[in-house]
Amino acid sequence: MLVSAHRYSLRSARGLVWKRHASTIPSTLTPAFPDEYDGALIVTERIPGPKSTALISRLNEIQNSATINFFADYAASRGNYLVDVDGNRFLDIYGQIASLPIGYNHPAILDAMTDKDNLAVLAQRPCLGLFPPADWVDRIENTLTKVKPAGLEDINTLMCGSCSNENAYKAVFIWYQTKLRGGHPPSTFDMETSMSHKLPGTPNLSILSFQGGFHGRLLGCLSTTHSKPIHKVDIPAFDWPVASFPRLRYPLEAHQAANEAEEARCLDEVERLLRENQDENGSTKAHIAGMVVEPIQAEGGDNHASPAFFRSLRALAAEYGVAFIVDEVQTGGGSTGKFWAHEHWELENPPDIVTFSKKLQTGGYFAKEEFRLNEGYRIFNTWMGDPAKMISLQAYLEVLDKDQLLENTRITGEYLQTGLEQLSERFPSLISNVRGQGTYLAMDLPTEGQRNEFVSIMKSLGLAAGGCGSNAVRFRPALVFQPRHAAECLDKLEQACEILTQRR
Amino acid sequence: MLVSAHRYSLRSARGLVWKRHASTIPSTLTPAFPDEYDGALIVTERIPGPKSTALISRLNEIQNSATINFFADYAASRGNYLVDVDGNRFLDIYGQIASLPIGYNHPAILDAMTDKDNLAVLAQRPCLGLFPPADWVDRIENTLTKVKPAGLEDINTLMCGSCSNENAYKAVFIWYQTKLRGGHPPSTFDMETSMSHKLPGTPNLSILSFQGGFHGRLLGCLSTTHSKPIHKVDIPAFDWPVASFPRLRYPLEAHQAANEAEEARCLDEVERLLRENQDENGSTKAHIAGMVVEPIQAEGGDNHASPAFFRSLRALAAEYGVAFIVDEVQTGGGSTGKFWAHEHWELENPPDIVTFSKKLQTGGYFAKEEFRLNEGYRIFNTWMGDPAKMISLQAYLEVLDKDQLLENTRITGEYLQTGLEQLSERFPSLISNVRGQGTYLAMDLPTEGQRNEFVSIMKSLGLAAGGCGSNAVRFRPALVFQPRHAAECLDKLEQACEILTQRR
Repeated sequence: MLVSAHRYSLRSARGLVWKRHASTIPSTLTPAFPDEYDGALIVTERIPGPKSTALISRLNEIQNSATINFFADYAASRGNYLVDVDGNRFLDIYGQIASLPIGYNHPAILDAMTDKDNLAVLAQRPCLGLFPPADWVDRIENTLTKVKPAGLEDINTLMCGSCSNENAYKAVFIWYQTKLRGGHPPSTFDMETSMSHKLPGTPNLSILSFQGGFHGRLLGCLSTTHSKPIHKVDIPAFDWPVASFPRLRYPLEAHQAANEAEEARCLDEVERLLRENQDENGSTKAHIAGMVVEPIQAEGGDNHASPAFFRSLRALAAEYGVAFIVDEVQTGGGSTGKFWAHEHWELENPPDIVTFSKKLQTGGYFAKEEFRLNEGYRIFNTWMGDPAKMISLQAYLEVLDKDQLLENTRITGEYLQTGLEQLSERFPSLISNVRGQGTYLAMDLPTEGQRNEFVSIMKSLGLAAGGCGSNAVRFRPALVFQPRHAAECLDKLEQACEILTQRR
Repeated sequence: MLVSAHRYSLRSARGLVWKRHASTIPSTLTPAFPDEYDGALIVTERIPGPKSTALISRLNEIQNSATINFFADYAASRGNYLVDVDGNRFLDIYGQIASLPIGYNHPAILDAMTDKDNLAVLAQRPCLGLFPPADWVDRIENTLTKVKPAGLEDINTLMCGSCSNENAYKAVFIWYQTKLRGGHPPSTFDMETSMSHKLPGTPNLSILSFQGGFHGRLLGCLSTTHSKPIHKVDIPAFDWPVASFPRLRYPLEAHQAANEAEEARCLDEVERLLRENQDENGSTKAHIAGMVVEPIQAEGGDNHASPAFFRSLRALAAEYGVAFIVDEVQTGGGSTGKFWAHEHWELENPPDIVTFSKKLQTGGYFAKEEFRLNEGYRIFNTWMGDPAKMISLQAYLEVLDKDQLLENTRITGEYLQTGLEQLSERFPSLISNVRGQGTYLAMDLPTEGQRNEFVSIMKSLGLAAGGCGSNAVRFRPALVFQPRHAAECLDKLEQACEILTQRR
């Protein structure tokens, strides 16, 4: 049973500034995760602890291990708590970079993975494009069909987020060229010229993307990624057009006019690029076949724009005949309080393509019927996804429904966001720009250095956390994150702010 | 216990032309797969049967289903036999496009998947680059470390074959630019310019590839794929250099001089491209940072070249300072009779990078230490592979060793190849160019149309088979394929030849 957030208070013993609610967490609240730990626990002096450090050294003999936070004991982890090999127990607000749907070792997933009926799916990996399993259509209908965005009838499974975006771009290129041919398949001349990368078989097409966007790191999608140089430097790229993405000021209500002007500026830039694209004189220029956008730019720093901005983008794409691709790899799956973040926009004309991965465990994309391929083997690879991941996906979607986790996420998100705003009021020189939807939240530290130090302090206090952009901290807990976890999180964030203040 | 092939004869009752061995299969032969079916069985009039056809219709409501052969009953499949939903039982010589290591439902894999110690690995998908599981280093050391090619110390796990090649290219680009910088990390100017796709941060580098090669279908690796137009048409590409790959004539011993001349021609072309690449005047040209080659061009038609050809290629790459990438996605894992097909070349200087996927279930690449990344987050994504696939990989490698499956594959391959050659002698106007190593074999039909008809007849006789190139049939059985299966396969191939002959 879910109870709205204002009935809770923070469980803290520290007299927190954001403790504005009277009662304690009512005993009638059903925990979204059974038998969870009652809190984080740090037992080593440093993170990573000695056992993790030894394992990092061993891994470093095999590969660069610079990015490892610590080695995890997944068997001991439960719900929102990630346990490491040294026995530290973290409250996980990073959720495996937003890819953990319903916490660690959820009973529904454990049951599904030990269900004898699923064993054959785990024991071999079929080519889904040639020899799909008997229950493959059922598995899709019990999972992806149930969450497909309105108006997007075509469902394709793939491997990961990058692979999903890259194949969505391919579907857009094929759609665009097919339109130019009046619906005809490629001609013999198209086929021949494609083998030597010549026009018309290899067209000079592009995907319009946005500054600050992140769509993966394969060579095609990396050309549309503009979040951080370390992702891009030294790698060849397609020189495709890039538009500005709004940089909003917070709190929104205090900067309404400036923010509207900023969004108008970005929309003008998009329209200019689309208009230039129609100029047939510059035949060597890459024609724009589609545009790709995240509902919330994640890796780039949790940059938001208004529903009106996205509605205008969608209209521009339609007006200029380019595909509108919404990359929901990180936003999809429920953490914004709706299953798809683009539902918040209330579009009349749905996106042409929506890509997904992360929380859904399988990658893939949904598309309008006009993007359905007419010929086989055009979007194809050996595996075309992995039915084993559909097992977890089905368990997660059933739990999402049964335990009302979207509502839980809205309630918890409102609670956490209120707390973060109060934290920002108490530490205005440290915390700013609190923003987000559901539990998909972020806040800024003044500099990249301070953000990194803050994230490090968070870990030492028992929060598994991650940054994004140059100076943001992002919140990406699983959907079983509840007010009591938010309270614990806020308590630790307050401590982190105090520690960082004392150090300055 | 393994016995060499010449002690077997074909089990056929049809008086086959290639039945040149006296005895029947000795009862002392240990089956590589316990409790297997005793043969293929076709029970429906057409393939796909009515239940598959109904499921294909249902799938077609969701996505293009043109490539589906039939729906499989994986729970009922066992060893080399793939059972479909209509109860047809196929001898599988295609092996899920060469990705099935030790047959269907191998007891070792079933045991591993139901081992309680592996449950936590199945129940959540960690970010291996941030929070690897406690036993992650052990899992690598028990699997990939054991099969790493000599001289390649750096081991990276990834998602699939395309993803592995694409990331290998990225590693090569980073290595090449780092060399140019005298080992220094990217400068601030490199970082800045990379964000707007300008030199020097976004360099104009290329990967040299070969006509007929296949390295996947993502936008980078698709630019090095030159197998079939349907893979490439309508998709933008990097305009990177492409060299000819030898087209050998068979039988090799009858065409030695012509084949040597053909290989020399291709090597000259490679050297010309590498030499032109050194010309610093053409600054807009894409400089070659690496070359990529398959040991046997698979998708392109099972095109082989001699070990001497590959040794020369390797030497050319070293001479011109470009990375030598060997794509073992399809050839790796044992079916050529060695674990890696490039072991047949007896290189003194190992490849710089070897990529893998398919039979290994996980993707990834091995690299020389100089390709080790100095900075984190440069070859990175959310998951960086999937530990669940390491469970199957470990079981497979243990069985490979215990059951001497490499030796089994060499014996079976010799037997099958001899049979195919005899088939070619009996049906010279149908079957030609029998070629291959181990059970990684192929033969040609006269035309694409006849090849397609032949593959269709093979299916109707109970062989799950696939073509490659314009007119080849490829053999990609699992490593548990034994002489008795080869005998059954040859028997059916003879029938297929007779049927095709009668139709003409």
